[in-house]
Amino acid sequence: MRPDDARTAAGRLAERLRADATDRDRANRPPVREIELLRKSGLLALSPHDHAATHAVTRIVSAADASIGHLLGYHYLHLWRVGLFDQAELTARTWRETAERGWFWAAVSNPQDAILATPVADGYLLNGTRTFATGASVADRLVVNATRDDDGERLTLVVDAHAAGVSHPADWDNMGQRLSASGSVMFDRVHVTVGQVVGALPREAHDPRMVRLSLSALSYQSILTQVYVALAEGALAEAAEYTRRNARPWALSGAESAARDPYVLAGYGELVAGVRAAGLLADHAVAALQDAADRGGALTAEQRGEAGVTISSAKVVATRVVNETTTRIFDFIGARGTASRFGFDRFWRNARTLTLHDPVAYKAREVGAHYLTGELPPSTSYS
Amino acid sequence: MRPDDARTAAGRLAERLRADATDRDRANRPPVREIELLRKSGLLALSPHDHAATHAVTRIVSAADASIGHLLGYHYLHLWRVGLFDQAELTARTWRETAERGWFWAAVSNPQDAILATPVADGYLLNGTRTFATGASVADRLVVNATRDDDGERLTLVVDAHAAGVSHPADWDNMGQRLSASGSVMFDRVHVTVGQVVGALPREAHDPRMVRLSLSALSYQSILTQVYVALAEGALAEAAEYTRRNARPWALSGAESAARDPYVLAGYGELVAGVRAAGLLADHAVAALQDAADRGGALTAEQRGEAGVTISSAKVVATRVVNETTTRIFDFIGARGTASRFGFDRFWRNARTLTLHDPVAYKAREVGAHYLTGELPPSTSYS
Amino acid sequence: MRPDDARTAAGRLAERLRADATDRDRANRPPVREIELLRKSGLLALSPHDHAATHAVTRIVSAADASIGHLLGYHYLHLWRVGLFDQAELTARTWRETAERGWFWAAVSNPQDAILATPVADGYLLNGTRTFATGASVADRLVVNATRDDDGERLTLVVDAHAAGVSHPADWDNMGQRLSASGSVMFDRVHVTVGQVVGALPREAHDPRMVRLSLSALSYQSILTQVYVALAEGALAEAAEYTRRNARPWALSGAESAARDPYVLAGYGELVAGVRAAGLLADHAVAALQDAADRGGALTAEQRGEAGVTISSAKVVATRVVNETTTRIFDFIGARGTASRFGFDRFWRNARTLTLHDPVAYKAREVGAHYLTGELPPSTSYS
Amino acid sequence: MRPDDARTAAGRLAERLRADATDRDRANRPPVREIELLRKSGLLALSPHDHAATHAVTRIVSAADASIGHLLGYHYLHLWRVGLFDQAELTARTWRETAERGWFWAAVSNPQDAILATPVADGYLLNGTRTFATGASVADRLVVNATRDDDGERLTLVVDAHAAGVSHPADWDNMGQRLSASGSVMFDRVHVTVGQVVGALPREAHDPRMVRLSLSALSYQSILTQVYVALAEGALAEAAEYTRRNARPWALSGAESAARDPYVLAGYGELVAGVRAAGLLADHAVAALQDAADRGGALTAEQRGEAGVTISSAKVVATRVVNETTTRIFDFIGARGTASRFGFDRFWRNARTLTLHDPVAYKAREVGAHYLTGELPPSTSYS
Repeated sequence: MRPDDARTAAGRLAERLRADATDRDRANRPPVREIELLRKSGLLALSPHDHAATHAVTRIVSAADASIGHLLGYHYLHLWRVGLFDQAELTARTWRETAERGWFWAAVSNPQDAILATPVADGYLLNGTRTFATGASVADRLVVNATRDDDGERLTLVVDAHAAGVSHPADWDNMGQRLSASGSVMFDRVHVTVGQVVGALPREAHDPRMVRLSLSALSYQSILTQVYVALAEGALAEAAEYTRRNARPWALSGAESAARDPYVLAGYGELVAGVRAAGLLADHAVAALQDAADRGGALTAEQRGEAGVTISSAKVVATRVVNETTTRIFDFIGARGTASRFGFDRFWRNARTLTLHDPVAYKAREVGAHYLTGELPPSTSYS
Repeated sequence: MRPDDARTAAGRLAERLRADATDRDRANRPPVREIELLRKSGLLALSPHDHAATHAVTRIVSAADASIGHLLGYHYLHLWRVGLFDQAELTARTWRETAERGWFWAAVSNPQDAILATPVADGYLLNGTRTFATGASVADRLVVNATRDDDGERLTLVVDAHAAGVSHPADWDNMGQRLSASGSVMFDRVHVTVGQVVGALPREAHDPRMVRLSLSALSYQSILTQVYVALAEGALAEAAEYTRRNARPWALSGAESAARDPYVLAGYGELVAGVRAAGLLADHAVAALQDAADRGGALTAEQRGEAGVTISSAKVVATRVVNETTTRIFDFIGARGTASRFGFDRFWRNARTLTLHDPVAYKAREVGAHYLTGELPPSTSYS
Repeated sequence: MRPDDARTAAGRLAERLRADATDRDRANRPPVREIELLRKSGLLALSPHDHAATHAVTRIVSAADASIGHLLGYHYLHLWRVGLFDQAELTARTWRETAERGWFWAAVSNPQDAILATPVADGYLLNGTRTFATGASVADRLVVNATRDDDGERLTLVVDAHAAGVSHPADWDNMGQRLSASGSVMFDRVHVTVGQVVGALPREAHDPRMVRLSLSALSYQSILTQVYVALAEGALAEAAEYTRRNARPWALSGAESAARDPYVLAGYGELVAGVRAAGLLADHAVAALQDAADRGGALTAEQRGEAGVTISSAKVVATRVVNETTTRIFDFIGARGTASRFGFDRFWRNARTLTLHDPVAYKAREVGAHYLTGELPPSTSYS
Repeated sequence: MRPDDARTAAGRLAERLRADATDRDRANRPPVREIELLRKSGLLALSPHDHAATHAVTRIVSAADASIGHLLGYHYLHLWRVGLFDQAELTARTWRETAERGWFWAAVSNPQDAILATPVADGYLLNGTRTFATGASVADRLVVNATRDDDGERLTLVVDAHAAGVSHPADWDNMGQRLSASGSVMFDRVHVTVGQVVGALPREAHDPRMVRLSLSALSYQSILTQVYVALAEGALAEAAEYTRRNARPWALSGAESAARDPYVLAGYGELVAGVRAAGLLADHAVAALQDAADRGGALTAEQRGEAGVTISSAKVVATRVVNETTTRIFDFIGARGTASRFGFDRFWRNARTLTLHDPVAYKAREVGAHYLTGELPPSTSYS
């Protein structure tokens, strides 16, 4: 799928998702039908190498339904990071099959929990539980991070999401991102072959491939930042629709409609301007990610760090903007717009949930440290 | 019930309500059992004349459950404003019966809709629908504002909430204040006698009693402001409990617990300080209301206006503080605290719903106009 | 001068200006020597058509000295708008002479005052006083807006800044932008010939050329926005230098240097991120201006309006960011950094002065109105 | 002087100081004449024990001239803390002489520098330099903190400000608080007798009197907080005067005067409301200080800590409010109000200078730590 076609398809999908977003948010069902819509849209087949395109598509879809946009962004991300291990054949096959069969990808890689891999004759048995495995319960294929229980080697594996031993406690009931299927996943003696091993890193991090591989962590941050901006854009667009159609002018305003109230006008203006700035910085961060990715194995720690700082700065701004925007839109909606059927609170609930992925204060700190002293951000699962 | 006993009783009730506040918020049932708890607590019998006490009790209960605190605050307010018409005998009987029978009061007085009163032989027939009739569906007695359909006289009536012809469409399903029973009420040929008429004002507002009667509008604002402060206080208290018990320290913080993270500490400090200031100004506003009320019929428009400005300034600050606090607490809770079972989003949902009662920009404008030019706020249903 | 060379030259000039910026700010002398530096730098000869280049150069110089950057940005702007009247020969000669002779341009066009032109045999006599004539007292050539006192025709003229009858009361003593020479200019029977008339518009604005000509107003806003961003960038850079070199760690921080204090780090990070976002939006606005300018006489009112909205959104964000940044840097500098010799307050004083050029609330309103209803901003001298 | 009379006198003095505050700020001369005005006003003789009165007077004067208010607040503070050592006779004499002779008190006690006391036959010789000795150069009497160079004992001494060996380099030239005479003081073999020793504490802090004595540190914070609030109040009052008299309505506002512009009105309202809340919390903090002081030697560390937390919360709020208010007033003044002769920037310069006394982030942290864990603030020279 070409980028332009992807944008068009994303627009159509967003329209479809927007229509019943509130109802689906309240129903809190696993996003099975939504994944089916993603599959039919053709968007799953967009090349994960074109970060500008994948991020743009993620943003368009997220503005309508941040859960589904989140899932889609992570799908691209997982597919892309499989390719970082330089296994050309495996990568090519993975992408081909994904395109042909419409596979939806998720991952089991929350760095705060652990899956253990026990070596057996022809591969490994995986055991363990991970929380916050976004999308795993509705995925076709999983990228799994596991640790060998004998030598501590850190494996990246590709696993059939429906393999024997993989189960999903129905434990995702959250105030936001309710359709992101971010519950736990359990591995009970899940058998994988060596052919499913995408990459392996020694326990200690001195492997030279680490710099490039560590772009994964930045990619999560970049996708999240796009979803934040999208949430602010979606909130503004739907609030504006309500202000135009439903909101009543306040008697003391002397205005003939809410859309002529001076405070409503300036209020929208401040938010719109802020969201635009955040969006540009978010896109600037995508370009930084692309530049770093394009350097392949030649990427230096410094280049990687600079990209990380740019992405973190985008995240800092987008976090502030989305939390502010999704709260303030209500000032332009008024009391009647708080009825559950309008579902305007879902923007804030989604934003607040997703902006806690990792504490933004440490992203600000990272940007400040780099500015003050040139210090590069630590390379962690979150930075 | 004496004020000190009321505070103690309110504390006990708050503890009881806090225990299952999240579950009750999700269940979205009419607050029948909660009203029963109010009745048993003895709090409904607190004198509505002691604004310091009624507001304090409202705040204590609201910190645990802002819907029930809101209902309780309005109960006092309605009972108190019945007394503004100088009908000593009626007022005394009303209060006595309320204390004896544990009546819960609500009102049908949303100024944006109208109930019409058609004169009949011994009284009136009431017809019409009003939205946002907070508490009406679970009340024992109602204060009803109606307009005579012949001469436009504006009546204030006391009506049995279970009288024939009074019905409540189950139409309250809101993102916040879900237990405040703020749905519609319908009057279909509800018969009232002249003995139920508490007061009557001519169509035009030149009645000298208007200044005193217009304190009602300020009283709503003052109660709402206390609930805003309470929401911020409750959010902080429950977030702090979570931070202490459940939150995990961020790896990069180097802190041994979340409660030692420098950003968490300073973040709480900023919010706590802001909430204290808002609380003091809210109480200062209560004192201004009490002063104005104590002047009785001698209250001048200027004195009334000054009280209004003070109350509006408290509302402006409390609105900002509660929206900020209920959003920012999440920074100290972290991602795992967004699970629905913790229900931390209810503070923001309640705050955002209730702070839209009327647009705060016009309260700020009122305060600014008074500061700049000495202009008194317009006397409306909201100011 | 080529754009790349201009950036290099601007960097050199900025370094030179930064060295004694504080002293020059305090001395409050007309920027005669600074104009000489501009002249020698060759920057006055940069093509005013390349908005990306002129704005970039303005920003680089403004970060070091916002008064001189302001003067330089306006120089480009005036030179460029002379060309909007399609007088090819006059325009070409103007630019050629400017490049050859190193002319510095300013204008007499504050829309809130009026210069009157009285027709005489071979031209006009100009009379009147204008306030806020930025740069006029140190300029070589002036673009003057005057109104014919007989038929109200609005003239744009090119005037020798040293012509007989032009005088400058030494009345510029301001809290900020002290070196911008923004005092008054007086015209006392200043004689101009018809050859100095660049353009003439009938009293009423129905002239089709107006759309294109009205880009001037947007150009002012765009230049100002760059100076705002530059002030924030300059403030951050100089504060960081101080934090690194001079600031003491706070005892309770446990940090070995101020540049390791967690609040200092996160504080810088928040500001740096915000300034980057503002800068990107400011540059996006320049691109919108360039697009509009490139359409020449074919520019439609709608295209002009869209460019205006983008520029206004950049101004809204930059205004917020620069006022916040120039205040908050002090938190990272500490008490000892408030000594006059460091001059850190000049950033805020410059920012606050320049952000009042016209009230930003109306820019926010314009952005909001466009977002809500598609309304184009009014075409005025300020929008 | 009785508290009511003091308030009246402070009002008169404030009026006098306000009249030429801008000129005096620019002249940057030592406040010799201002101290003379303080002396004549009788305010120096107000009892330093009545914290409500001393803080109120400090606030009234500071709203007009924050330097002089600052000096006056510190005068009370120093006089009061002399009494904390339970030297009844010395204290009584000190106060009596102060009242009789109109002494102005300052101190030499910046905790970041050191004065050394070398024991000699009948007393000590003091040597050393201290920076930021607010008021010392214009004082009659000084409270000096010195450290014995033999055993590290920490002495508090009363010294004649004109004693031989005391000198003041004219090194106070600051962006704000320009009239606060906060330059250095040098002691070159200044001789003091044992009779001038007010108190002595062993090197290590285990002395039981320390709890009470450590109220001094809180008293500084409380006075500073009042000056912050005063600066915000003064800025608002003078800006409002300008808005009413001088500001022009913006053409697009459609308002007939700036004081009718909707954004001006709501803007003032937000600031006024915020300042009121900050003022109430500041006064609440004074009451906490008074309570703690009234406990005398029975004051526990916990009671002292609770008072400190209340004072810190007031400081956190006042810091935010004064920096915001002194920046935002300009939005209601407009470009013409930035002329130096109006001097509106002095409020921000004073605020920004004084709010850096010690970093407010650590005050917020202290409030947060106490809220979260009950931890008492560390007892330092600043908390």
